[in-house]
Amino acid sequence: MSKVTPISGFPEFLPADRIVELRFLDSIRETFELHGFASLETRAVEPVERLSNQGEDADKEIYGVRRLAAGPDDDGPGLGLHFDLTVPFARYVLEHAGKLAFPFRRYQVQKVWRGERPQEGRYREFTQADIDVVDSGELPNHYEVELPLVIADALRKLPVPEFVIKVNNRKIPEGFYRGLGLDDVTTVLRIVDKIDKIGPDKVVERLVESGASDKQARLAVQLADISSTDTSFVEQVRALGVEHEILDEGLEQLSQVMAAAAEHAPGLLMADLRIARGLDYYTGAVYEIYLVGQESFGSVGGGGRYDALASDGKTTYPGVGISIGVSRLVHRLVSQGLVKGSRSTPTAVLIALTAEEDRAEAMRTAAALRARGIPVEVAPAAAKFGKQIKFADRRGIPFVWFSNTADGPLKDSVKDIRSGDQVPADPATWTPPQHDVRPSIETPQENS
Amino acid sequence: MSKVTPISGFPEFLPADRIVELRFLDSIRETFELHGFASLETRAVEPVERLSNQGEDADKEIYGVRRLAAGPDDDGPGLGLHFDLTVPFARYVLEHAGKLAFPFRRYQVQKVWRGERPQEGRYREFTQADIDVVDSGELPNHYEVELPLVIADALRKLPVPEFVIKVNNRKIPEGFYRGLGLDDVTTVLRIVDKIDKIGPDKVVERLVESGASDKQARLAVQLADISSTDTSFVEQVRALGVEHEILDEGLEQLSQVMAAAAEHAPGLLMADLRIARGLDYYTGAVYEIYLVGQESFGSVGGGGRYDALASDGKTTYPGVGISIGVSRLVHRLVSQGLVKGSRSTPTAVLIALTAEEDRAEAMRTAAALRARGIPVEVAPAAAKFGKQIKFADRRGIPFVWFSNTADGPLKDSVKDIRSGDQVPADPATWTPPQHDVRPSIETPQENS
Repeated sequence: MSKVTPISGFPEFLPADRIVELRFLDSIRETFELHGFASLETRAVEPVERLSNQGEDADKEIYGVRRLAAGPDDDGPGLGLHFDLTVPFARYVLEHAGKLAFPFRRYQVQKVWRGERPQEGRYREFTQADIDVVDSGELPNHYEVELPLVIADALRKLPVPEFVIKVNNRKIPEGFYRGLGLDDVTTVLRIVDKIDKIGPDKVVERLVESGASDKQARLAVQLADISSTDTSFVEQVRALGVEHEILDEGLEQLSQVMAAAAEHAPGLLMADLRIARGLDYYTGAVYEIYLVGQESFGSVGGGGRYDALASDGKTTYPGVGISIGVSRLVHRLVSQGLVKGSRSTPTAVLIALTAEEDRAEAMRTAAALRARGIPVEVAPAAAKFGKQIKFADRRGIPFVWFSNTADGPLKDSVKDIRSGDQVPADPATWTPPQHDVRPSIETPQENS
Repeated sequence: MSKVTPISGFPEFLPADRIVELRFLDSIRETFELHGFASLETRAVEPVERLSNQGEDADKEIYGVRRLAAGPDDDGPGLGLHFDLTVPFARYVLEHAGKLAFPFRRYQVQKVWRGERPQEGRYREFTQADIDVVDSGELPNHYEVELPLVIADALRKLPVPEFVIKVNNRKIPEGFYRGLGLDDVTTVLRIVDKIDKIGPDKVVERLVESGASDKQARLAVQLADISSTDTSFVEQVRALGVEHEILDEGLEQLSQVMAAAAEHAPGLLMADLRIARGLDYYTGAVYEIYLVGQESFGSVGGGGRYDALASDGKTTYPGVGISIGVSRLVHRLVSQGLVKGSRSTPTAVLIALTAEEDRAEAMRTAAALRARGIPVEVAPAAAKFGKQIKFADRRGIPFVWFSNTADGPLKDSVKDIRSGDQVPADPATWTPPQHDVRPSIETPQENS
C-alpha cells in the first residue's frame, strides 16, 4: 500500500497551477453569469442506455459504475459516468421540464470522464465549462450566433493566445451527401471526420470501400476543404454542382450566423466545412475552438445545435451549446510556461511567532486582518525570524507580521519580504497593496 | 429512451436552489482562503486497494469504475470512486510530497460517492468541503483547535441554525478499552459507535457476544455517556476507575483542545466521548458537527486527526481535517424552507425587444450594462411589453429595459417590475441597487 503511482489520463495540479485553473474557472463563470446563464450541476452518473449510441467514439469511452458490494442483480439498470455535460443536461431538462422556464439558459462546470487512450492533451478525466440554451418546441436561430459570442467574451478575458471558432452546419454535409446520392450520412460523416488524422486520400479510399463511387468520394472530400471568414463559402459549395434542399437550408443558416457574427465580432468565426464533431446528436450549427497556430493540438472547446436530444415523445426541447475544455486549456498553457500562479497559497500575510505562548495573541491579530478580507495564517511553530521568513518565501507569501514586546509596549510591524521593507502596522488598519491580497495569474512571457 | 426517472440517492437542485448551494460554496471557500488554505482537486478515482479497509461501512460503499469496452485484463488495477476527500488527499501528499511545502494547508470541494442505502439526508453522491493540515514527521497539536475554529467561522457566515462541534479523542476509548482488558479496540469501537442506532442495551449484548464480560461492556457504554462543555469530562472518566497510559494521553490532549477552544470560541466545542467516526484511519481528535436540536438528522460534517494514513514507509505525514457536508446541509435547509434563492437566474435586467431587427441594438445595450458588472440577457423573441414582463417575472428578473424610437430620438427606460416604477435610463451609467445585481439567499422565516 505504500507505493503511489499516477493513473495515466487523470492529471492533478500542484497548488500554484490549481490557482491558475481556479482563476480561469472564476472568470469564465463570471462571464457566463453576466450573460444570464444559471448554474446547474447534474449527477455524475446516467443510465448506460442514455449514454450509449451517441457516436462511434463516445460508446467506446464510457466508464461503467457499480457498487463493489452489489450482487449480480442488485443495482438495477447499469450506470455510467457522463462523458460530456450535454447528454445529462438534456436528460435534466426532460426530468424537470415542468419546473423550468423556457428558453432556459444554463452553465455547467463539471468533470467528465472518457476512457480514451491517454495522450498529450487527452485526458480520461477533465473539467468542462458549458453553456446551453434550450427551448420548448422551437429554438430561435439567433442563439447560434449568441453562444459563440459569449464563449469569445469568456476567452478574451483570460490570458489565452489568439483563438478562432470554426463553425459548420450539419445540414451542409448531410444535404450535400444526399444530393450526391450518399444516403448513409452518419457513416460518410464519420469517415470524413478522420481527414485530419488519416489524410484526404485515405478518406477517399474508405468512402469507396463503404460503397461510394470515386467521384462521390472526391466531392465529399472537396466539400471538407472549403472555408472562409465571410459568406463566400456558399459560392464555393455551389461551384461543386451538388443540389439538395437540406444543403440549401444549411447554407442559408450558416450564412446568417457568419453575417451576424461579422457585425458583432469581426474575425471571430470562420466557416469551415470540415468541422464535424464526433457526436451524433448535433443537427445544425457545429463549433470547434482552436488556438491559432496550434491546430494540431486539437480543439480547446466546441459544441453545436441539437434538435432532438431532449424529447419525451410529446414535447421536444431543441438546444444549442458550447463547451470550453478548461483542464485541457490550462494544462496546455501551464506546460508551455505561458501562465503560472503568483504564489502557491492564498495567504498574503504570515503572522510570525517567537514563543508558543503568543499563539492566542497571534490568532487575534490574524482575525483582525481577515475581518478586512486579507488571507492570513499563523506560523506553525515558534521560531527565529529567519526561519519564519524562509517559511513565507517558500510559499510566495509576500508579507510577514512581527509582534515585539521586548522594549516596552507591543509593537507590531510588517515586512515585505521581497523588498525587505519593514514598517510599523496596526492590525485594525494595515492593508497590503490590492494586487498582493490574492494570488493572481502571472504571464511570464510578458515580463521578459 | 424517452422515460426519465430519478436515480435514488443522486439528488439534483433546481436553478433557484442551486443558487443557494453556490452561495454556500462561495462563502465557505472565501473563509477557507482567508485562513490560508490552498485549493486542490484530486481525481475522482483511486485504486480500489487504497479505498478498501478504511472502515466497516466504507468497504461496503465503494463504487467500482471500469471502461465498458475494456477486456477482462485490460484496465490494470481496479479503480473506484472516492468515498471521501481525506484518503485521496493523503495519497496526493505522498505522490507530490517533494513539491509541497509542509505544513501544507489545503481545502478541497468535490463530489464523493458512497453506495449506502439512500434515505433522508443520506446520498450516494454529494459535495463535501474539506480543510486539512498535513505536516511531515510531526503535526503540532494546536491544529486540533484551529481547524474547528475555521469551520465555525465558515458556518457562522452562512444562514445556518445554531450548531455544535462535538469532539472526542480516539486515544480515550482506545486507552480505556485497553485498560479494561479489551484489546480488540477496532471491534469494540465499531459496536459502541452503533449506540445511537441500537441503544445501550443492545451494545452491551453485542460486546458480550464479542467476548467482553458484562462489567467490561457496561463500563464501555458508561464511557460513551460522558460529555461536558468544559474539561470536567476528565473527572467523570477518572470516576470509572480505569487506568491506561494511552487513556491519560487522550484525556490530556482533549483537555488542551477544550481549554484552548474555550478561550477563542466559548461554547463552540462539546467534549462528547460517544463520538467515534466510522472510519478507521483516525488516531487522535475526532469531530462531528450537529445542528442543535436536530441531532437525529445526523451530523452535517466531521473529521479528525490521522497520524498514519499518509506514509510511504520512510516518511509519515500526519494530518488533521474537518469536512462540511454541503449538499446534505443545503438540501436540509431548502427542504425545511429555511433558505431559498431570490431568483432562478443571475440575470438582473431583461432587454425587451419589440422587433427582431432591433436585436443588434439590444445586444449593444446589454454589452454596455455587462461591462459594468450587471448580468443581462436579451429577450428571446420580439413580443409585446406584457409578454416580456411576464417572461422576466417568471424567473424573478427584477428589471426590464425598453428602447423606444417611436417619438423621435432613441429613448431608453428601465422598469422595476416589482414596483412598476419606470425611469429613463442610459446603458452607460444606470445601475440597479446593489442587492439586486446578483441573486441572493432569502431566509423566509425572518421576513414573516
